[in-house]
Amino acid sequence: MADRSLIFPAQEYRDRTARLQQEIARAGMDALFLTAPADIFYVTGFLTRFWESPARPWFVVIPRSGDPVAVIPAIGEALMARTWMPQIRTWDAPDPRDDGISLLADVLGDLVAEQGCIGLPMGLETHLRMPLGDYADLCRRLAPRRFADATGVVQHVREVKSAAEIAKIRASCVIAGRAFDAVPQIARRGRGLDVVFRDFQVLLLREGADWVSYVAGGAGPDGYGDVISPAGAQPLQDGDVLMLDTGAVREGYFCDFDRNFAIGAASDLARRTHAALWQATEDVLQALRPGMLACDAHRMLCDGLTRRGATPGAGRLGHGLGVTLTEWPSFTPLDRTELREGMVLTLEPGAATADGRIMVHEENIVLRADGCELLSPRAPHDLPEIL
Amino acid sequence: MADRSLIFPAQEYRDRTARLQQEIARAGMDALFLTAPADIFYVTGFLTRFWESPARPWFVVIPRSGDPVAVIPAIGEALMARTWMPQIRTWDAPDPRDDGISLLADVLGDLVAEQGCIGLPMGLETHLRMPLGDYADLCRRLAPRRFADATGVVQHVREVKSAAEIAKIRASCVIAGRAFDAVPQIARRGRGLDVVFRDFQVLLLREGADWVSYVAGGAGPDGYGDVISPAGAQPLQDGDVLMLDTGAVREGYFCDFDRNFAIGAASDLARRTHAALWQATEDVLQALRPGMLACDAHRMLCDGLTRRGATPGAGRLGHGLGVTLTEWPSFTPLDRTELREGMVLTLEPGAATADGRIMVHEENIVLRADGCELLSPRAPHDLPEIL
Repeated sequence: MADRSLIFPAQEYRDRTARLQQEIARAGMDALFLTAPADIFYVTGFLTRFWESPARPWFVVIPRSGDPVAVIPAIGEALMARTWMPQIRTWDAPDPRDDGISLLADVLGDLVAEQGCIGLPMGLETHLRMPLGDYADLCRRLAPRRFADATGVVQHVREVKSAAEIAKIRASCVIAGRAFDAVPQIARRGRGLDVVFRDFQVLLLREGADWVSYVAGGAGPDGYGDVISPAGAQPLQDGDVLMLDTGAVREGYFCDFDRNFAIGAASDLARRTHAALWQATEDVLQALRPGMLACDAHRMLCDGLTRRGATPGAGRLGHGLGVTLTEWPSFTPLDRTELREGMVLTLEPGAATADGRIMVHEENIVLRADGCELLSPRAPHDLPEIL
Repeated sequence: MADRSLIFPAQEYRDRTARLQQEIARAGMDALFLTAPADIFYVTGFLTRFWESPARPWFVVIPRSGDPVAVIPAIGEALMARTWMPQIRTWDAPDPRDDGISLLADVLGDLVAEQGCIGLPMGLETHLRMPLGDYADLCRRLAPRRFADATGVVQHVREVKSAAEIAKIRASCVIAGRAFDAVPQIARRGRGLDVVFRDFQVLLLREGADWVSYVAGGAGPDGYGDVISPAGAQPLQDGDVLMLDTGAVREGYFCDFDRNFAIGAASDLARRTHAALWQATEDVLQALRPGMLACDAHRMLCDGLTRRGATPGAGRLGHGLGVTLTEWPSFTPLDRTELREGMVLTLEPGAATADGRIMVHEENIVLRADGCELLSPRAPHDLPEIL
């Protein structure tokens, strides 16, 4: 679009605000106070890479009823003014004497009565993106108003994606799918893994990513040691399994899936593990329904791997996806979040191969009333070989 | 290097730890508690893009004397084990019942006596990267131990770069410099700004960036409206001034500078403004010395612009640079941080042109005992024209 400063029509943001306000009321709160980039983008549509600078805090306040208010550094006023946001208050940041706190206290104090409760996300997968000392000061200024955990409010609303959001995530998945299709052109034996990572990012940009917030991967015989290390210069060799994983971003929405490739002919172990990962994913693609729990998806993936002779890896085996690379819920044995229609999720089984090595596999889906709809182009059943 | 998991020799990290421990003692604290990606990278060398996922917190504790301890999710153990870190404790994250907090409380409780004080950054430009509710729980578990603001401890140490760090930042600047040299090949009239942003990221990767954490810019007649908006599809036109700004990353270290280009023949106003920005920067390059204050740099840049008939822009006109895109101090009228030898800084004057438009200019330097040494290849005095 010509102006990226409004990703969706204003009605999309009004709907989100109304859903958040329902949850604010249900939680017995009087306002929701947001500081995290994803939450602020979700409510306002304010899209910028400027978050990379930790210098300035940004705030959005949503009262239980009425219009939300953005309380932001003046440097963001022009961009925020092009979003739907009806009320914008600014200060000159950074200000070591008072970095927006008295302005923010005024806004919150006007919207919330003295006996009121201000919700903010304090729970799993959340961070307060402002100086902790300023938050303590804010609490003092606003007393006797209480601050309480609103993680559930935000999680419950953000977890279920609108049709417009699903279309954006699908677009990011399509971009990454085309980049993965071209990997055999860049991942030849003898090339360093660091060069492959770099070239893969170029492919993602060429295919239409606005930027590439995440690339990870690994390469080794029959699997890789871990999936979060930066790439070294070691050259790809015959017998390696190469895995590339990406969170490419288009218009603020992420994909998050990976693909495996054998360098040269695949070993039996790598081939069997890939097939087990693919089949365990296929089982869940067929069986997952709204009403199941996040821990059910974890169990189904583990059972599917075990049934096919693979050893399930540790850790979570999938998660939510949208305006961040990973979102609630988590597919672990402990997460009892109910899966609902409209959730966008990753299925991410991992299996141990040999010598502390693993292989992982990932797809992105949206959960419909009658089951999973793929957003990522389905990986091939057979581990592709780059000969 | 073959293994990117240790960017520097272990001695570099031991020196950093010793410097932090001096400051911890000077502040009357018993330990430093760190949660932010930049701080953890700084102490450990743990380099990963996995921070993009908000799902898991990561912790490092530095006692007043003795070895630091990493308290991290098990998924990071293999990578952390390849760094110099002498002590690593892990838990299976994410765990909704206890996401590392009892383990962390044990570690801090063992290292800090009951009457002790635990420092953590709570001030300007800092964030707590863990759930706020877990932090409150941690404070309760560790009482009567006190938590206090250690922003000054971290700022004072991180602000002054080692020779090894300066070499890394210079390498990132060289990469960006080569990419800027190639901009005339991608920024032709008629091309959309979004396409130019994408192609510029490709240039940065081709020139050796590991990843591109930040690209911003703008284009318009005699300047641009703001410098944080995402690029739209509007085509470049004759008479536009195009500005591109980047924080490209190599081995965890950022550059942060920009370049301007006229599309077609530059207007008199654009040419004059560019020359004023260049000269105001040149003045400071000649005059800046250790012992001056951050606010002095701001004043010198404003005076230089005014003297040459330009109108200084609002906001800060430079800042620190290193393991994040922007670091302390800030060149504003309010920041009285003393400039010290070894600081890496950006000089970033901005000037209003017309109709709410601005032009900005940026260089990266290291402050030596006898003045500024450029890390970015110096911009040309005359606004380059892409004809």
